[in-house]
Amino acid sequence: MNFSPDGTVTTPQGFRATAVSAYIKYPDRPDLALVVSDMDCSATAVFTKNQVVAAPVVVDRATLKANNSHIRAVLINSGNANASTGQPGLENARHTQALVATAVGCAADEVLVMSTGVIGVQLPMDRLQAGIAAAANRLESATAVSPEAKEAAGLSAAKAIMTTDTRPKHLAALVELPGGVVTIGGMAKGAGMIHPNMATMLSLITTDAAIAPDVLADMLKTAVNHSFNRISIDGDTSTNDTVLLLANGASGVAIDNHDSAVVFAEALTALCAELARMIVKDGEGATKFVEIVVSGAETAVDAHTVANTIATSPLVKTAFAGSDANWGRILAAAGRAGVAFDQYQTNLWVGVQHTDELQLVHQGTPTHYAESDAAAIFAQPEFMIRLDLGRGSARDTVWTCDLSHDYVAINADYRT
Amino acid sequence: MNFSPDGTVTTPQGFRATAVSAYIKYPDRPDLALVVSDMDCSATAVFTKNQVVAAPVVVDRATLKANNSHIRAVLINSGNANASTGQPGLENARHTQALVATAVGCAADEVLVMSTGVIGVQLPMDRLQAGIAAAANRLESATAVSPEAKEAAGLSAAKAIMTTDTRPKHLAALVELPGGVVTIGGMAKGAGMIHPNMATMLSLITTDAAIAPDVLADMLKTAVNHSFNRISIDGDTSTNDTVLLLANGASGVAIDNHDSAVVFAEALTALCAELARMIVKDGEGATKFVEIVVSGAETAVDAHTVANTIATSPLVKTAFAGSDANWGRILAAAGRAGVAFDQYQTNLWVGVQHTDELQLVHQGTPTHYAESDAAAIFAQPEFMIRLDLGRGSARDTVWTCDLSHDYVAINADYRT
Repeated sequence: MNFSPDGTVTTPQGFRATAVSAYIKYPDRPDLALVVSDMDCSATAVFTKNQVVAAPVVVDRATLKANNSHIRAVLINSGNANASTGQPGLENARHTQALVATAVGCAADEVLVMSTGVIGVQLPMDRLQAGIAAAANRLESATAVSPEAKEAAGLSAAKAIMTTDTRPKHLAALVELPGGVVTIGGMAKGAGMIHPNMATMLSLITTDAAIAPDVLADMLKTAVNHSFNRISIDGDTSTNDTVLLLANGASGVAIDNHDSAVVFAEALTALCAELARMIVKDGEGATKFVEIVVSGAETAVDAHTVANTIATSPLVKTAFAGSDANWGRILAAAGRAGVAFDQYQTNLWVGVQHTDELQLVHQGTPTHYAESDAAAIFAQPEFMIRLDLGRGSARDTVWTCDLSHDYVAINADYRT
Repeated sequence: MNFSPDGTVTTPQGFRATAVSAYIKYPDRPDLALVVSDMDCSATAVFTKNQVVAAPVVVDRATLKANNSHIRAVLINSGNANASTGQPGLENARHTQALVATAVGCAADEVLVMSTGVIGVQLPMDRLQAGIAAAANRLESATAVSPEAKEAAGLSAAKAIMTTDTRPKHLAALVELPGGVVTIGGMAKGAGMIHPNMATMLSLITTDAAIAPDVLADMLKTAVNHSFNRISIDGDTSTNDTVLLLANGASGVAIDNHDSAVVFAEALTALCAELARMIVKDGEGATKFVEIVVSGAETAVDAHTVANTIATSPLVKTAFAGSDANWGRILAAAGRAGVAFDQYQTNLWVGVQHTDELQLVHQGTPTHYAESDAAAIFAQPEFMIRLDLGRGSARDTVWTCDLSHDYVAINADYRT
């Protein structure tokens, strides 16, 4: 498998994309992305576990429940999440499906919609309608263009879905299978990283492999567990979080045997993990990328819970921002995760290249490390931490970033 | 019952206090508070539920388990939490008990210790020893002073236990009982309020009522549940959090019947609630005090869980800081609390004098309120929010503050 950093959702065959300015919120940039497949797609999605879900999540869930084998188009807008908008919001999301269907020439139940942005405000349907028409027009004229122009259009879509992101996140993977080469392309947007899941995380992944919907669903669940869920607490996600995977079969290669499925699933997971890491690195105001490993747990769930609690602790994350090797906060966060352990059996290491370069804590007691050595590691833009609980052999890894002054500036003034 | 805002732990009869500079961390202010009772005290404490607990918590738990009826002295230091300090930290805490016992003339198991400050650093025992000796000397010479001087000494103790607090927190209550008047005095320190429980919260409460230890324990548990736990997530507290209650009986009035117990318990709860509110109002960088009411829940636990999740949401709290009536974040936080509800049955109100002045959400859909009316409420230094889940009749209240730029500044640079 090879990654193509310039690749995106239009790298796989048979997918086209475009982005236009619908002026939903931003006055000066495209905010509407339309992605269309030339043929029917198998489709599956992983949605937020929040009890309060945005209208597009309600609508997409229902759409996919009725039809997971002939999806044709996805419309994504930034600037307005269509969340906490009540019944009018649901009607607007359904009306959006119909508008896209008419514009691209398919049925309404073959269209999925995603939204990200401010919550509690109704979508400006007139501007959205004009934007959809403009996007469909541009898309039509783009059918016979070069691969470069097609990829550029995919990149413009990745940019249009951004909110507080500072850069687009996209990637493609070429996967060699016995039956031939298939391509997976993806784009994502994220950002808010105090609780990573509290700013909307959207991702659209496309592939030209042919895959049955139920197989696709299993593969996406596994991939998300090892990627987006490593930056996101289970059950603790925003109102709009969605990862959507479309497979249109345009490559002529079918994933219909165990060996192909294993290779493809691995590539899908790797691509999702790379997109997830991009989200963390572009966390609001983030200046550091930190890998948190918890080992020696009794169960993988315990390890994940402790790692997540450390990764989302504001006190830990502000210490990262200050390049402060304040490991006591790491232990204190672990201690409130709700997982039983004996503090006098814990060990803690930090490192840049490896997790175990410098041991800071031995059996709950600080070692005689040099503060300057610890500070040198915490001053790096990327470093790793391993906490061993001394209870068992389960481990888990979570990625996080620091919490800087800029996070508060961004979120205090977000709506104004 | 009457509150005395100038009152503190020395307002009840038979308690003396002093504060000295032991130079544990702060170069220019007292950092060591010693409180002594002239007679044996019944004692009880509520400790942190964190798995990682500081040495003084380990030592006090053991001390109170063996002796809850003749406690004589409490030593509290700021600047160093004696947490994550391993076996040496435990030995230092026990040695501190012995040093205090010698200095004030009691047994080591009649002394309790509390610490707050940086974690992972051993206590400087030489400076602590000198500080304890100095404190005991000052205390001895203070036996025959005026009530005003005694109260001033109590105030100096309330100041000595501060860390990032900007002002001391103390209060006394005079309680009229059939058998006579008893006094309750208290002091507290807190501060970090993203997760309120993640900065150490310490409180010492004294009373000259005579109360049996088991009755005292029940009363404190109830009082803490209705006060400090309203600003703190259950099971999610710092390594050092402690609320300690001492009753020395010096008033000659015993709480030995149901009626007296009810009146006294109510006063104790009210005093704790007032101290808890002082902590929130002095949260690190806090500029707003917000009361979060969740009603219409199926159970009180559900109501508490949802209220806590809203109260600790960084996105909600940064919106408060920006005076932004971004109520969508309030619903989104409620939705990830792990409590089932139907978003289309929720109602949300805000107000300054009452919780229900302005309805923002009706059955999950925004009402046609004027943005300027909502903004006017969110711009106030104190306001209230009520979210009704539409499921049942249980409710709970939690107090929180905003998350401002200053919080990050304080916590990124705390150790440096």
